[in-house]
Amino acid sequence: MSVITIERKILEKNDEVAGQNRSLFLEHGVFVLNLISSPGSGKTSILERTIELLGGKIRLAVIEGDVQTDLDAQRIARYNVPAVQIVTRGGCHLEANLVRDALQNLELAGVQLLIIENVGNLVCPSGFDLGENHKVVIASVTEGDDKPLKYPEIFHRASVLIINKIDLLQYVPCDINVLRGNALRVNPSLKIFETSCTTGAGIQEWCGWLKGQVSRQQ
Amino acid sequence: MSVITIERKILEKNDEVAGQNRSLFLEHGVFVLNLISSPGSGKTSILERTIELLGGKIRLAVIEGDVQTDLDAQRIARYNVPAVQIVTRGGCHLEANLVRDALQNLELAGVQLLIIENVGNLVCPSGFDLGENHKVVIASVTEGDDKPLKYPEIFHRASVLIINKIDLLQYVPCDINVLRGNALRVNPSLKIFETSCTTGAGIQEWCGWLKGQVSRQQ
Repeated sequence: MSVITIERKILEKNDEVAGQNRSLFLEHGVFVLNLISSPGSGKTSILERTIELLGGKIRLAVIEGDVQTDLDAQRIARYNVPAVQIVTRGGCHLEANLVRDALQNLELAGVQLLIIENVGNLVCPSGFDLGENHKVVIASVTEGDDKPLKYPEIFHRASVLIINKIDLLQYVPCDINVLRGNALRVNPSLKIFETSCTTGAGIQEWCGWLKGQVSRQQ
Repeated sequence: MSVITIERKILEKNDEVAGQNRSLFLEHGVFVLNLISSPGSGKTSILERTIELLGGKIRLAVIEGDVQTDLDAQRIARYNVPAVQIVTRGGCHLEANLVRDALQNLELAGVQLLIIENVGNLVCPSGFDLGENHKVVIASVTEGDDKPLKYPEIFHRASVLIINKIDLLQYVPCDINVLRGNALRVNPSLKIFETSCTTGAGIQEWCGWLKGQVSRQQ
């Protein structure tokens, strides 16, 4: 019982800090995404393709969340985009206070779009608000078409689903219409993009939507 | 501070129940594996191929762990193997007491091999002993070759690594030698198998090793 109470307190405290983050983002006119997926679904690759396409048009910044290593921040730093790495040292998700601390090392003035790449985990990050405008869940076709039913929480809480690695569809047992249907069953208002970071398919559509959202925030 | 104390108590309590599970398994001469991977790496497919090859030779049982749905237990039930589904309803990993409860619905007498398929999560399940003989981590090549460095805990705690979906190697940016090297850097004593559930590659080697382990347990 005491554990449950403490869990509730952790979530309440997280919501409080997330609210402060959100106020700060709003004050600076920053549009914020929280990218969530399994390990290896392509969060960092989506981020790279997004920076390539929008980097010249929108002032971007990135917060990378990882259990260990700063490999992802190194990948992003190559694009000359401000990037801060959070290493959770075993922690399975980002919390609002980790993002707040990371913001100490990130100049928000002038930033239009902040993308937070969460720890690779389809379960735990879904319950923790970081102060973002939208959660974006990425599912790669190699993971199969049943994931929205088996891990419904994040599909329920996300505004956007990116179905990634569609270039591999012909080689894997995944029916993209079943995947879309399962996702919409869990969350009928999900906005869905189908992408491949290898061929570039769908990246224009995703970035077009994103650019529109950022303009609206200003 | 109080949260840390409670976390320690949860882990101590888990170790205690895991010890009881382990005694029960030993008493019945059951060899037990705890399968851990990201969502969609192929845990259930590996299980299916294993049952197909060993089902006639070894008396098998399965415990399925999922956040939601009994889709995996349904897949396994087709093979006429005793299967119990644990639905964690949002919980991100299996704990020893969930396995203990599941054992109420599973007749261990005569079972030689019990395979527990954990929740799809590369982070949280690694810290929770269920009473198994070995943790087996599955990483698919579609997830990339950097995962052992980014999620070291489970590669450190596992005895076996199955590198799955090797039929897709030619289509994805994953160097299997880098993946092997990264895994062995984290855990030099890892036993590694390379498999494809589509072509059947490596399944014989994996099942051969497993059969040897089971014989030794009797």
